[in-house]
This record gives sequence, C-alpha cells and structure tokens, in this order.
Amino acid sequence: MTRISFEKLAQDGKARLGVIKTPRGDIRTPAFMPVGTAATVKAMLPQSVRETGADILLGNTYHLMLRPTAERIDRLGGLHKFMNWDRPILTDSGGFQVMSLSGLRKLTERGVTFKSHIDGSKHEITPERSMEIQKLLGSDIVMCFDECPALPADRDRIASSMRMSMRWAERSREAFGDRPGHALFGIQQGGLEQDFREESAEALKDIGFDGYAVGGLAVGEGQDAMFDVLDFAPDMLPEDKPRYLMGVGKPDDIVGAVARGIDMMDCVLPSRSGRTGQVFTRHGVLNIKNARHMDDPRPLDENCGCPACRNYSRAYLHHVFRSQEIISSMLLTWHNLHYFQDLMSGMRDAIAQGSFAAWQADFHAARAGGDLEPL
Amino acid sequence: MTRISFEKLAQDGKARLGVIKTPRGDIRTPAFMPVGTAATVKAMLPQSVRETGADILLGNTYHLMLRPTAERIDRLGGLHKFMNWDRPILTDSGGFQVMSLSGLRKLTERGVTFKSHIDGSKHEITPERSMEIQKLLGSDIVMCFDECPALPADRDRIASSMRMSMRWAERSREAFGDRPGHALFGIQQGGLEQDFREESAEALKDIGFDGYAVGGLAVGEGQDAMFDVLDFAPDMLPEDKPRYLMGVGKPDDIVGAVARGIDMMDCVLPSRSGRTGQVFTRHGVLNIKNARHMDDPRPLDENCGCPACRNYSRAYLHHVFRSQEIISSMLLTWHNLHYFQDLMSGMRDAIAQGSFAAWQADFHAARAGGDLEPL
Repeated sequence: MTRISFEKLAQDGKARLGVIKTPRGDIRTPAFMPVGTAATVKAMLPQSVRETGADILLGNTYHLMLRPTAERIDRLGGLHKFMNWDRPILTDSGGFQVMSLSGLRKLTERGVTFKSHIDGSKHEITPERSMEIQKLLGSDIVMCFDECPALPADRDRIASSMRMSMRWAERSREAFGDRPGHALFGIQQGGLEQDFREESAEALKDIGFDGYAVGGLAVGEGQDAMFDVLDFAPDMLPEDKPRYLMGVGKPDDIVGAVARGIDMMDCVLPSRSGRTGQVFTRHGVLNIKNARHMDDPRPLDENCGCPACRNYSRAYLHHVFRSQEIISSMLLTWHNLHYFQDLMSGMRDAIAQGSFAAWQADFHAARAGGDLEPL
Repeated sequence: MTRISFEKLAQDGKARLGVIKTPRGDIRTPAFMPVGTAATVKAMLPQSVRETGADILLGNTYHLMLRPTAERIDRLGGLHKFMNWDRPILTDSGGFQVMSLSGLRKLTERGVTFKSHIDGSKHEITPERSMEIQKLLGSDIVMCFDECPALPADRDRIASSMRMSMRWAERSREAFGDRPGHALFGIQQGGLEQDFREESAEALKDIGFDGYAVGGLAVGEGQDAMFDVLDFAPDMLPEDKPRYLMGVGKPDDIVGAVARGIDMMDCVLPSRSGRTGQVFTRHGVLNIKNARHMDDPRPLDENCGCPACRNYSRAYLHHVFRSQEIISSMLLTWHNLHYFQDLMSGMRDAIAQGSFAAWQADFHAARAGGDLEPL
C-alpha cells in the first residue's frame, strides 16, 4: 500500500499550501477537519459533509472505545465502513478527552485509568492501548498518546508533563510499528514556554513521525497567548511534514494559525454552534434565535451556496430553531461547515496566488463592516 | 389557473387507482401524506421527503397559526416557499388539534376559543377563520372546519356534533368561495353510526366539495371498529371525487383502508416512530434500541433502497440511537417514510394490474413470517 506523503505546493509568508496523499484520497491543506465524535458529524449525513468540501474527518478515540467499542467497530469492518465515510479519518489518542470528560482519573508513567462518563465502568489507556484502539478503528492518521496540563501551570509541571509525553511518543512510535497507508503524528507539548517547545520538537524529530501536531493550545490561554506560541512553535517542526494545530478554532483563530504555518486543524465549533443557533458568516456571527430575524426574508448569507442559504430565509431558520425542530440543527450545521470549508478554500487559493496578506486584510475588513451579533 | 381534478384510472374490488391533478403537480392515489406539522417533516429535508416518493405533504393549521402565524407565512410568500416544498400541500382545519393539544377550550355554534399550548395566549377558530388561515398559508387542499367527539360517545352527542359540523361545512364552503387551483374537502362525521354517516354524507354532497374525508376515526375505536365503518362509509361518498381517511395509520390500517375504497391518508407514525427507534419493514416492526442489533452487520431490510438500508448496518443504527445522535432520527425517519411510500406504490401497481387481493395476501404473509419485534 502507498505510504502517506505530504507535498508542499506553495508558500506565502509562513502560510503553506499543500496536499497530503493517502490511499483514501487527497487532503488539501490548509485543511479543516469536521469532528465526528461518536461515528457521526452531528446532524449531518456523511455525503453532506463531503459536499461542504471536507477531505478528512476527525474521530474521537475516547468516545468510540467506550461506545460502541473499538473491538466492535473492527468486527463490523472498521470505522470508515461503520459510519459510511470512505475518505481519510484522523483519530485523536483519547488522552485529551480522558482529562476533560471522564471521572476519577489516575495518571502514572504507564498511562491513565479512568471511569467512563457514560456508565462509570473502569478503563485504561496506555500509549500501546491507544495505538491498538486506533488500529482497530482503521484510522488513517493516528495520533500519539500524550498528556498536557491545563494552563496556567508552573514551569516544573509543564516540563515534567511534556517529558512524559515525549516518552509516551517513543512508546507510541514503537507500538505503531510500520503500517504502510497509515500515518503516525507526534504531538509537541511545552505550554507557552519556548524552551520546552524546542525541547519537545527535538525529541519528536529524533523519534521521527509522518506529521507533527502543536498540542496543548486552545485550552483557555486566549488567542494572544496562542498566537505568541504559534509565532515560534511551528518553525521548530520539520518543513516537509504536515503541521496540525489540535482543537482550533474560531474563524480568526484558523486564519491566524494558517498565517503562522499551520496546515491542519479540527474543531467542534461549526457543528456545536449549528445546534445552538450560532451562525458563522463572512460578516461575523449571527444568532438565529434573536427576534430580529423573525420576519427577515433574506438568506443567512446571500453569497453562500449551502442548502440553508439557497433554500431558506432567516425567518424560516428562526422559526425552526425556536420550534426546536431537528431541521434547524441540520441546516445550521451544514451552513457552518460549508462556511469553514469555504474559508479554507479561500486561503488555499490566496496562498497559491501569493496574495494571502491581501486575503487576510479582506477577511478582517468584511467582519468589521458587518451588522451582525458578536459571538 | 387550472382547477384541481380527480381521475380514477382503475378499480380492483373496492380499491381505487387514481390521480389528483393540481397546478403544483400530480398526486398519485392511493396516496400517503407525510406530516409536516410546523413547516418541516421532522428530521428530513424536503428534497429527501420527495425522494421517498411523496407527492403531497400535510401541514397543521393549529401549529402554524400559533407559530410562526399564518400572517407571517403569508408575508414571507406562503408555506410552500417558507418550507421549500413546491409540490401540493394539504392543511387540516385546526379543529382536531385544538381538541387534542390546546388548553381551556370553549366550543359554541360560532366556533372554538382556546389557549395556545406554547404560551397560553387566547385564540379563536371559526369556519371563516380556518378558511382565512388556510388561504394565508397557500394550502392547495383546504379542509372544512369541523368538530368530533372522542369515542365512545352516546348517539345524541354524536348526532348533535355531526350536525354542527355540517353547518360549519356550509359556512366553510361559503367562506372558501371560488379559488381555481385550490380545492376544498368536506369531512364526513357520525362516529360508528351508519345512519349518521349517511346523513352526514348527504349533507356534504348537497353542499358540494372537491373531495371528501372520512373523519372522526382513528381516535381510539380500534381497527375492527374502524374497518366496520369503512365497510360502508366511503361508499356513501361521491364515486368521482377523492376520499381521504384522516390520521391513518399503521401499515395494515392503510392497506385495509385502501381495500375499502380510500384514496388518501396521512399519519405522523413513520416520522414519530423514526425518532423513537421503531422501524417499519415488510416483515413487521423492528425496535432498533434492542441489544440484539448491537453486532448485526445486516441492513434494516436488504430489499429496501433508502439511504439507511443502502449505507448502514443495524449495528450502526443501534449505536447512534443509543448515543442519541441526530443522524438516528434522520436515517430512521427516512427509512420509515420510504417504506410507507413503497407500500403505496406497491398497492398502486397491484390495483393497476388487477392483482390487489394477491398483493394483500403477500403483504400479510410477509409480516406473519418475520422474526421481528411486535409493535
């Protein structure tokens, strides 16, 4: 089977245009990955997710190992077949969500034990078990098992956590083995500290990975602090491999990350916001539940080509949101995912043309000039 | 504008094959109308409803008059545009749902006053107001405003209620006026009493309508009692007009009604059941939440062409139902609506070929031989 490869096609400032080639199809970068936590991108059929322009989905190891279990998905032919998505899937390692969702965690050098948020049952994830689960799922891009402290944290805590994650990265690499057609990504840690980020990057490069994530950001530190780290952290990672910023983010976070050399991102924001009535547009965020939309015959965005904008008024979307109709989640999620993919497509075109700085200026100007509700 | 017309194309026993021609498209009969209560067939996009084979939807006057209001829908261009469904829509009169859903009702010869189940606000529906609301919505097939008692009820109550509904039918006809391209249907009442059904049918024929509904059934009387009434009630209605049985029903109710000369039906059952995990198949009902489906790689029905059956295992559908994912409602509703439309299509073909009795025998045999969970 073909190995997964990354080709950089153009660069404009630090912004990179590229393509990740996989046996399941190409991933155009910069790429935004919709999140399909429990083997579904909530409120969307997979073909609709594809129609928004997504080349790859993210699946959550933590959720899937608990229900329906990785072993069951394997018996049923793997995650792609199970959820009817034949293009690439990246799975996280489970570590982050053990920390944020489960109860009664115990962290040791060996790994982490925890209780399921669904039924309280006890489970363990080690680097070796995370690799096994992600293999059972059939993930195309596998993430190293890591650990990161909530910020702010003191330097000692950040350093010891980062160093354990680097030992776990080595164990993950060892356990992953050689799997043509599947990639393993390392995850840089080190909080906001430049020296620890450097130490982490060197450790990962010594091990050697198919791609490198910037981890431990978007955990409450704020956009300024995140951008400060992104001003130096991606440059520490190999030029010829994809760089993935985990769990990001709002449209302006995404644009700022791409400007700093990030190639891949994922976030639940477009889908979660779709269910709560927050709509992303070129002009900013619109809250469909507001009474101002009750009689408005206009689409969410007259220049958007998604089904919600082509076929429905704001008044209709307001009505079905207020009536708690499922079609509200379906249409608003579709719109938001479409918007996020349009954003990526716009950036890719701009980088190809060497006009990324002008594109960025237009992006910020359009949002400043809008009459929409702030997030 | 063309008038709405009905043409009977074939008859087999009492079962009728026909077509209702409207400016918004043909309605093939026997027809099943999915219910789009609040301007959406729950969990479905309109184009998906159309793909199941539906020629016409039902909208609920009671719900729409309360939210978003008929006047608002009119200002926004009518219900078809509002909900993005350009084919025919039949609206009920609001009467039945005032009785079943609203609070503090007061019924007089003039009409009914009630409090909204949404916000407690006070409203009135009279025959004249019901015609006005249905006109504002832009309904293609308008129903007379009527009233019916819950069964069992004594003969005096049934007779006085039926006679008031007949006076309301005359007021509805008068208020509706002459609207080419739009049809008005009368509603036969009279409970389970053959003499009152006859009296009601005569009163309606004297007034003259574009179609005739059999009302006041499927309100708890049971299938045997309903079929007893359907053995005589449809025959009392004009041969050359469509006959509509309101609020029916389960697949075997539908088949039995068609066998007795009914042309149109509506019911929330396929969509509501889709949300609660009940799946209709040729072999009977399957409850997707049962643990027996957890590892089952088979589709719901190997002969069904809907997206749920083409693309997903029972194991997946079980998983997303248990995980309370929206895609569960989307896929199961789609399957159920597809099954109901397949049922109608099968009956239409059988009537055309003069083989309806054999088709009915096959229908019952397939259900008897299944290994599925009873409803």
